[in-house]
Amino acid sequence: MQPLGVALIGHAFMGRVHSQAWHTVGRAFRLPRPVERTVLAGTDSMRTQEAADRLGWGRATSSWQEAVAADDVHIVDICTPGDSHAEIAVAALAAGKHVLCEKPLATTVEGAETMARAARRARSRGIVAMTGFTYRRVPALALARRLVEDGRLGDIRHFRARYLQDWLLDPGTPHSWRLDRTRAGAGALGDIGSHIVDLGQYLLGDRLDGVSAQLTTFVDQRPLAGGTGRGEVTVDDAAIFTGRFGSGALATFEATRFATGRKNAIQLEISGTRGALAFDLEALNELHFYDATERQATAGFRRILVTEPEHPYLTGWWPPGHGLGYEHAFTHQVYDLLTAIDTGTDPSPGFETGLDVQRVIAAVEASAARAGTYVRIDREVNR
Amino acid sequence: MQPLGVALIGHAFMGRVHSQAWHTVGRAFRLPRPVERTVLAGTDSMRTQEAADRLGWGRATSSWQEAVAADDVHIVDICTPGDSHAEIAVAALAAGKHVLCEKPLATTVEGAETMARAARRARSRGIVAMTGFTYRRVPALALARRLVEDGRLGDIRHFRARYLQDWLLDPGTPHSWRLDRTRAGAGALGDIGSHIVDLGQYLLGDRLDGVSAQLTTFVDQRPLAGGTGRGEVTVDDAAIFTGRFGSGALATFEATRFATGRKNAIQLEISGTRGALAFDLEALNELHFYDATERQATAGFRRILVTEPEHPYLTGWWPPGHGLGYEHAFTHQVYDLLTAIDTGTDPSPGFETGLDVQRVIAAVEASAARAGTYVRIDREVNR
Amino acid sequence: MQPLGVALIGHAFMGRVHSQAWHTVGRAFRLPRPVERTVLAGTDSMRTQEAADRLGWGRATSSWQEAVAADDVHIVDICTPGDSHAEIAVAALAAGKHVLCEKPLATTVEGAETMARAARRARSRGIVAMTGFTYRRVPALALARRLVEDGRLGDIRHFRARYLQDWLLDPGTPHSWRLDRTRAGAGALGDIGSHIVDLGQYLLGDRLDGVSAQLTTFVDQRPLAGGTGRGEVTVDDAAIFTGRFGSGALATFEATRFATGRKNAIQLEISGTRGALAFDLEALNELHFYDATERQATAGFRRILVTEPEHPYLTGWWPPGHGLGYEHAFTHQVYDLLTAIDTGTDPSPGFETGLDVQRVIAAVEASAARAGTYVRIDREVNR
Amino acid sequence: MQPLGVALIGHAFMGRVHSQAWHTVGRAFRLPRPVERTVLAGTDSMRTQEAADRLGWGRATSSWQEAVAADDVHIVDICTPGDSHAEIAVAALAAGKHVLCEKPLATTVEGAETMARAARRARSRGIVAMTGFTYRRVPALALARRLVEDGRLGDIRHFRARYLQDWLLDPGTPHSWRLDRTRAGAGALGDIGSHIVDLGQYLLGDRLDGVSAQLTTFVDQRPLAGGTGRGEVTVDDAAIFTGRFGSGALATFEATRFATGRKNAIQLEISGTRGALAFDLEALNELHFYDATERQATAGFRRILVTEPEHPYLTGWWPPGHGLGYEHAFTHQVYDLLTAIDTGTDPSPGFETGLDVQRVIAAVEASAARAGTYVRIDREVNR
Repeated sequence: MQPLGVALIGHAFMGRVHSQAWHTVGRAFRLPRPVERTVLAGTDSMRTQEAADRLGWGRATSSWQEAVAADDVHIVDICTPGDSHAEIAVAALAAGKHVLCEKPLATTVEGAETMARAARRARSRGIVAMTGFTYRRVPALALARRLVEDGRLGDIRHFRARYLQDWLLDPGTPHSWRLDRTRAGAGALGDIGSHIVDLGQYLLGDRLDGVSAQLTTFVDQRPLAGGTGRGEVTVDDAAIFTGRFGSGALATFEATRFATGRKNAIQLEISGTRGALAFDLEALNELHFYDATERQATAGFRRILVTEPEHPYLTGWWPPGHGLGYEHAFTHQVYDLLTAIDTGTDPSPGFETGLDVQRVIAAVEASAARAGTYVRIDREVNR
Repeated sequence: MQPLGVALIGHAFMGRVHSQAWHTVGRAFRLPRPVERTVLAGTDSMRTQEAADRLGWGRATSSWQEAVAADDVHIVDICTPGDSHAEIAVAALAAGKHVLCEKPLATTVEGAETMARAARRARSRGIVAMTGFTYRRVPALALARRLVEDGRLGDIRHFRARYLQDWLLDPGTPHSWRLDRTRAGAGALGDIGSHIVDLGQYLLGDRLDGVSAQLTTFVDQRPLAGGTGRGEVTVDDAAIFTGRFGSGALATFEATRFATGRKNAIQLEISGTRGALAFDLEALNELHFYDATERQATAGFRRILVTEPEHPYLTGWWPPGHGLGYEHAFTHQVYDLLTAIDTGTDPSPGFETGLDVQRVIAAVEASAARAGTYVRIDREVNR
Repeated sequence: MQPLGVALIGHAFMGRVHSQAWHTVGRAFRLPRPVERTVLAGTDSMRTQEAADRLGWGRATSSWQEAVAADDVHIVDICTPGDSHAEIAVAALAAGKHVLCEKPLATTVEGAETMARAARRARSRGIVAMTGFTYRRVPALALARRLVEDGRLGDIRHFRARYLQDWLLDPGTPHSWRLDRTRAGAGALGDIGSHIVDLGQYLLGDRLDGVSAQLTTFVDQRPLAGGTGRGEVTVDDAAIFTGRFGSGALATFEATRFATGRKNAIQLEISGTRGALAFDLEALNELHFYDATERQATAGFRRILVTEPEHPYLTGWWPPGHGLGYEHAFTHQVYDLLTAIDTGTDPSPGFETGLDVQRVIAAVEASAARAGTYVRIDREVNR
Repeated sequence: MQPLGVALIGHAFMGRVHSQAWHTVGRAFRLPRPVERTVLAGTDSMRTQEAADRLGWGRATSSWQEAVAADDVHIVDICTPGDSHAEIAVAALAAGKHVLCEKPLATTVEGAETMARAARRARSRGIVAMTGFTYRRVPALALARRLVEDGRLGDIRHFRARYLQDWLLDPGTPHSWRLDRTRAGAGALGDIGSHIVDLGQYLLGDRLDGVSAQLTTFVDQRPLAGGTGRGEVTVDDAAIFTGRFGSGALATFEATRFATGRKNAIQLEISGTRGALAFDLEALNELHFYDATERQATAGFRRILVTEPEHPYLTGWWPPGHGLGYEHAFTHQVYDLLTAIDTGTDPSPGFETGLDVQRVIAAVEASAARAGTYVRIDREVNR
């Protein structure tokens, strides 16, 4: 069978993780059709070539346009900063390539709308587009979704979510594109807040009705990475917001890069009338489940080690008790993309979902700008 | 030395716990002056007499007025529902009795102001008044305060607080005075939210500038305890709010009686530029401390078992590793009150602090009524 | 009703904790008959009088003989070093007093046999004798026993137990009676090892068949508490042993005073064909239960917060989620003793159980003396 | 540069994990010389070819002899059952190939001695041999070793180790080669007990002096995998043993396949005069460190998230907080092997270490056969 050729755009942290996923997926899962790591695109020719050699890609290019247009490329995987997502994705979809795009989908709602429109058009031609909300593919969270879907939690009353990092705590940490509103769109809110917004909507199978928010930038200027001078920080360092889901469930969110001692902690809890779930990404092989239908005498949060063959994605890996790491969710993501391509089904989450999260982020920013006043998510479709 | 006579008003849950504290304090700590459990006041004569016998009080009365007025009573300890606090406390202070009053101090800001005024007047006559924010006396939290005071956390960036219970999850749980706005003032917000507001201000040594809030009542009516009919729930079931401290630190709060599987969990975390602290009341003998000034290679949240002689209040108890329970904080509270009486110093927290928390609660309600718009705490003193 | 008078012999650490239990039991539980703290006996008159005043005992004496003989004493509670247990207990039983005796019951098997004989004789006269294996009364462990009894664990395969302290880690820690074989009988083995031997036999409802052991004394001499000179350490600092239960279940035990950073940790785990239990005294309100009959997809150790009304002893205390401390188990212990006295039933554990544990300890020492060779517990009764 | 060709012998669980390591090592680490997955050897031609295709090996063979002899093979990686290790390893070394061999090294001490002899001879010709005690390469355990080496624990008093699995709990679990003494050498003792023996000696930098042991087989017969009939279980289901290190430190070990609810838990604790360490493989990115030189007021086990660039092996992976999984240790293992080959240094652990662990295992069996009597490890070299 003809293999599917992949073009990977970007080879920084995200590019490296995606590369490892493309590299591994065929060893771990039985693929409907083989894949090939065809081309790696970057901005600097030499560094891109080096990366291609190291990461095992067929060729390198400093022109993403070339990569996207290539005949032997069928899938374009976008791992660049947010401000280039729209242009690349739209071009790739127009060229008839399937697209996997890192989150947040775009830096503005308009950008995301353009992308979603392009995806809808491409869809009619059998082309699929996926947004990289990878944490859905952590087995413990996929199991969480399954338990909610199966009604094990009953009616949801509360969703609590924190995404905590601390890499900006030190005012001497240098400036980077992630701190520049033009490149990144938003700060902690867009980078990590978008993940917990998506997880909330995904896990509950519901949509946020509105939000009430506060944003803060604790450190306004930072030394430029190069050496001399200081750059303005034009994005939020931390975002705290509350919200309501369509069902009436209350939600709390915090996304911050100033959570001392927390390196990459996603802490979630869902309270329902029949049960509850708790999760912490720092212990990603565990899901804690409380079954409220049990006798009180033996009820308690049970720590499920999500490494059993019955658990989502686990057939690809090792025997019970042999834990997975952060990167495995990316392997699951490309496996799901390949399955969607093969079966011609909508990938989940698609660009519509990416757009929806972008709208929530816009509402968070609007609320913060209006002193926290509750802002409903504007989902008027403007096609 | 002439013992200090105590009148305890109320013998439900809080009365029982306070009773145990008065009962134990002299065994655990060397008191400046002995105390006597002089009189227990309740509403029903027979049940009060029974309780007095069981709990070991000298006599019983169904008239709190009588108890407050008695010559052999020097301290009045108020454990009644919130709507009677002001009247009893004002009468007791006027009669020259020291007062310990359960939180929230009152059901309205006006009530709390009246009480604080009465406390200020009494103070000039050497009479002291304390608000029962007991959790400050959990040794782990007293240690937390000490670490913040010693600068071990640096500048505070974040305060996170949840007070989670689940006893209202079942719509069949009967109505009670705690669900009646007239008697209780507020719901989860006043009952348990007041604790985490106080803890935030206490631990940080700072005051909230303002809040942005949402309140919800998930179940509007509940069966009356008696048997027939249903009563309106006129208070909040859950309160979620964000805030800013004077220092610029961000704060998140959640107080709910619908947190499935969480029975009485106070979960706190403080992030500072030099360190962080985390605490969970479900493991009340532990404080988790992260020292950000350490080398990364060995940095981590350390679980301090707060049972060493160096730790606050621990000299009164057992050797290291022999944990305390919920009730011990109440023993510490009356010990601190007795010390304040003896040394003629202001007890902490006094009624001013109780009033301040009441104002924060009022601001939370005002913000919720205004769709979450940020409301600054009104601290204009109206004497 | 005529109250039962109690004589407490000893007012060091254990005396203080027992005092608190006698002090509290009538407030927490509805007693069949009231109790009075009649007399406290110690060795030094002045210090005993001081302790009696502070701890609230009717009178003080420096003669335990006098206390035991007093007409107004019905219960003798022995909290002295091990070498005096036998003499006091035998005298008290002979005088027709009920006895509660701290563990280990005696310093030798012979001593324990004498005591058990005395208890059997007294039993026929309606007098009861109890051994202070208090940890059975920690609610989580009482619940553990109930789950085993109910068959929730199936056939037991493994019992694992560690009792870890670290107060001897520093070679400068002074000598004390606990390090003197004559006074204490054994070291870590007798003091804390006896607890986990008892817990193993109690929780499994089974008896050890034999043991294979190693004992060590890491620090041979220690400074005398007085000031000058050094004393020999004539007991073990640490004991590690394996064993087999009658059922064939394997057991591992470790008792040490050199477990760096562990202050008073009893760590237990039981593996059965239908379930498992885990417990750590450092989190004494929690029991972890794994139900092996569940579907793997949602199986996991559940953390039961043992504070519900359905849980053992909890009716005496606070609402769910309000944790108990170390000392509460002592209150439960005297409550159970009072119930046994009232109902005329055998208290559990009685002196026979204390004797049995003594025999296991003797077998541990015999095995260690024979290079770890398995030694069967000698239960030949020599009446 | 000419790549090093690898022959992998075996493609069951271990073969798959090793394959993933060979596959990934060049992407994660900068290798001194590239590697090629040259040939996969198995017993069944068709299944081996299938596995080679799926796992990405150049060719397949059903003759390990052929693989070992091939000119384009420089490294032989042995993942077969224990009874074939010696023959394959000796042949490979004789053919001038570097060898990585899974543990336990052999099924008998004699077998391991033969292998160690062959390795010594090969060593003089620049050929290296490594034993697959992979857990040394879990970053948290490599960090633990570093802390012990740096003296952060002082003199070691205790080592505690459990390796807990539960896959044999059900008597219906079918028979397999792992339960056959001829093929596997030993049961839980050899398979998982060997890991914790190695970890103890590695982490402490010390050797066991002797052991005192008990072995048990709970289920004597099991259904044959094929379908009809039952096979004898000729190995241990569980091994519990104590030991002494050269330094006098006490050690406890348990290896069992009947630890209900524990899937693959290695639980370790080391107590030293200056500090302590604790580890659980179920949370493999964490190391818990207690620094006994700190003030008691803030001392506690700190949970180090071992994902920082300063931590062993972490430069190859992701930013702080992005956890690794079980398989990563295998990538580290082959990286260390490749480094040893390149630098011409002895790989650690070599075959001598594998032999030493085999001797400990033999001593455990000897002690169990002699009713637990302490058996010293026989390290008389018989070359």
